[in-house]
Amino acid sequence: MATMSAVEDFDYVVFGATGDLTMRKLLPALYHRFRDKQISERCRIIGAARSQLSHEEFRERAHKALRRFVKPDALEEGLIASFLPMIFFASVNGAEADSTWDNLTGLFDDASAGKIRVFYLATSPELYGAICGNLKQQSLITEQARVVLEKPIGHDLDSARRINDEVGAFFDEKKIFRIDHYLGKETVQNLIALRFANPVFERLWDSDAIDHVQITAAETVGVEGRGDYYDKSGALRDMIQNHLLQVLCLVAMEPPGSLDADNLRNEKLKVLRALKPITAHDVPHVAVRGQYGRGRIGSKDGGEIVPAYLEELGEGKQSDTETFVALKAEVHSWRWGKVPFYLRSGKRLPSKVSEIVVQFRETPWSIFPTSLEPNRLIIRLQPEEGIQLSLMNKVPGGDGMALRPANIDVSFEKAFSTRYPDAYERLLMDTVRGDPVLFMRRDEVEAAWSWVEPILKAWESKTGSLHHYAAGSWGPEAANALIQSTGHGWHEEKA
Amino acid sequence: MATMSAVEDFDYVVFGATGDLTMRKLLPALYHRFRDKQISERCRIIGAARSQLSHEEFRERAHKALRRFVKPDALEEGLIASFLPMIFFASVNGAEADSTWDNLTGLFDDASAGKIRVFYLATSPELYGAICGNLKQQSLITEQARVVLEKPIGHDLDSARRINDEVGAFFDEKKIFRIDHYLGKETVQNLIALRFANPVFERLWDSDAIDHVQITAAETVGVEGRGDYYDKSGALRDMIQNHLLQVLCLVAMEPPGSLDADNLRNEKLKVLRALKPITAHDVPHVAVRGQYGRGRIGSKDGGEIVPAYLEELGEGKQSDTETFVALKAEVHSWRWGKVPFYLRSGKRLPSKVSEIVVQFRETPWSIFPTSLEPNRLIIRLQPEEGIQLSLMNKVPGGDGMALRPANIDVSFEKAFSTRYPDAYERLLMDTVRGDPVLFMRRDEVEAAWSWVEPILKAWESKTGSLHHYAAGSWGPEAANALIQSTGHGWHEEKA
Repeated sequence: MATMSAVEDFDYVVFGATGDLTMRKLLPALYHRFRDKQISERCRIIGAARSQLSHEEFRERAHKALRRFVKPDALEEGLIASFLPMIFFASVNGAEADSTWDNLTGLFDDASAGKIRVFYLATSPELYGAICGNLKQQSLITEQARVVLEKPIGHDLDSARRINDEVGAFFDEKKIFRIDHYLGKETVQNLIALRFANPVFERLWDSDAIDHVQITAAETVGVEGRGDYYDKSGALRDMIQNHLLQVLCLVAMEPPGSLDADNLRNEKLKVLRALKPITAHDVPHVAVRGQYGRGRIGSKDGGEIVPAYLEELGEGKQSDTETFVALKAEVHSWRWGKVPFYLRSGKRLPSKVSEIVVQFRETPWSIFPTSLEPNRLIIRLQPEEGIQLSLMNKVPGGDGMALRPANIDVSFEKAFSTRYPDAYERLLMDTVRGDPVLFMRRDEVEAAWSWVEPILKAWESKTGSLHHYAAGSWGPEAANALIQSTGHGWHEEKA
Repeated sequence: MATMSAVEDFDYVVFGATGDLTMRKLLPALYHRFRDKQISERCRIIGAARSQLSHEEFRERAHKALRRFVKPDALEEGLIASFLPMIFFASVNGAEADSTWDNLTGLFDDASAGKIRVFYLATSPELYGAICGNLKQQSLITEQARVVLEKPIGHDLDSARRINDEVGAFFDEKKIFRIDHYLGKETVQNLIALRFANPVFERLWDSDAIDHVQITAAETVGVEGRGDYYDKSGALRDMIQNHLLQVLCLVAMEPPGSLDADNLRNEKLKVLRALKPITAHDVPHVAVRGQYGRGRIGSKDGGEIVPAYLEELGEGKQSDTETFVALKAEVHSWRWGKVPFYLRSGKRLPSKVSEIVVQFRETPWSIFPTSLEPNRLIIRLQPEEGIQLSLMNKVPGGDGMALRPANIDVSFEKAFSTRYPDAYERLLMDTVRGDPVLFMRRDEVEAAWSWVEPILKAWESKTGSLHHYAAGSWGPEAANALIQSTGHGWHEEKA
């Protein structure tokens, strides 16, 4: 079983504490860590937000959130009764240097001065600098303090640099934890194990053996209530710049000299910097953007009719924001020369699936009567973490040597009979331990922005048309044309 | 599903028809092929043996055999009622040129002259020449005739050559089918598919990636009633010279230019001829022989006490015959230099298992806190055909990057929801079709004898002591010492 060492006692201050992320992810994650005895009752979780709530009122919200977002088999009311008193609330205008900060500072005394102190910023990124300034002003930044930044770190390279500068004025880079929850997923971390603890894979991990790689993150949901936020962002900023590029880094990086945070992040950075730069001229050839129209989603009774993106934004709204992106990336390195990396993410696609498909080259020569399909290693992040290796096998009982594809498939959760912790559980504990290995360093974030920026700019200037696709389809036809240019097809469409 | 084309009508004459092989394997195999409509009611199965039986009496024995050896879900009495009339019997002294042959020739007339005619010799190999001579004498060898030879083809190189010469005097090499039922096993044939239709494996299939190979065929049974036969043979002749060396050939061979029988067999022959010759001096260092003593087998109530080999032979018998062999073989080729192939077979071992274990080399460098186990590909022939790939995976939920081994495992029969035909079904149909691809060519058999003969000679001259092992153990301790000389261990003992 997993070893989960108890962490030191801490105070965890969450700015934006009344928001969705706190309720849906952070509180349930901390509850699970408490349930596994990784954190003690002496730890405090302090919600900070502008709302006027008493500790008790915030605890009631927390209780509701746990009932809603923790799976029933893990919900223990007795345990919750011990957990809720660890939760506090402070009504603070985080970005303002006003007296509301007394509500927060009043919770700290000499006894808590030496404790680990984490400030988790789940607010709008524009406020990060101001909040950090106020934390400094209020003398809340102790030796043991660190700050966690939620994505997006900015909306382009300049704004990312500005935020990093602002936060960096108050916190050392080593105390800044830029969270990308994809890195907290077990299967994403397992990529490091699969590649560097299994010579059978690492020996195949280059352009000699690999034909191309596909990384897909597909959602069935639309923007629903988040239209205002999403419309300023779009799929490229929301998914590709962070999550999918981070996954690409782990797939493509060279073996690090050790698992030390900086060694690992140096290798990821090398990949980001080796990405073939995309010029404005390239954009129409390597990037496809789409926006969903009305369509049907789900399989029951032919699917449920769902509204178009523009309808979800609200009456009369116009927008060129993309809800779908497909990209062709190239890593300019000895290992990956000539191996395309296809990235794809979208909303209102037919199924919720995140996966990495490593497609191997075809057999150089076939002696079989059947046509052969290339081997594929599929690393599934969602819905069920697992891996699948597709092989050609002899058809049993046949006359001769007819072959057919068959998959060796393993769902980790089933195979290992272990609960797979949510990504945030691991990441929150890492912030307490002060281990930044699964967090993005400043140079990584900026390198990622630097690579996507020409695409953003081109799209802003209307280069590369916005395609429309029906909700419930796999995106615009242009995304197929993109991958077909190298003779391939997206993995789901074959399934 | 498997395509099983109907074969042409045939007459199948089995010499030694009252024996165990006919009842246990050949009749059930033909019944299954009839059930799958691969053979028509116009086909005849003619038992030949010295016993005085009527057709009806032989059919009654056949009926009993089917009831005993066909799985209940495939037993259909209505079908059996159609199958039994296809069976005939002729009382013949096969090795004698006497008038009993009239009983057989009387069953052939002008109508059957043009039919495919198979003579299956399931008698003592010393009789093969004489039977073939008589077949010629009786003008039974038509254009469409072929002969199937059961193992053992001789008991050493000289006797194998003599038998091959004798049979070859009456049948063309192309009409001689030397059966090795291991080659009829789906998983053994699937080796060809796994290797040459899956670049992910073939790219790893050499001494760069592979550390060593283990081929094991373990039985739980003793010699029981077959002591007289077995005592003249022993495990080296009974299992290694044929089955295990054939499997080794398929694991080690270069890709054939096509699946044509001679191409494939040329490649197997190259492996046999590339085996490092074993000199009398080498024998004690590369070969271990053992004989089982009394012991306990099975897991119920600590196991059942079973007698020693010598007790099974009968009171007062002495014997140096080996019931266990472990060998270290080397294939002298560019691909396999420095990769030991360990072969092992024995009776009265703890479990019935036949498998190929391909153990890959260790990671050249580990960045993980856990010690790593090398990857292993296990190709299981028995009890359940399937494959297993052992990988190192991240322990889910752990703090850091602790790893543990986990297997990706597939049982073909379960995964493909298909009945796996018995090896004989495929092989008997191949003899009817005249396809020798899964049969041993004369030069292969002789090359195999040639390689094992120095071991046989050494043991006859008492070089290399006979070790004893308790029934229910994994053979003598010397077998462990053999594989430990390269720092390894037999696969089962770790399990």
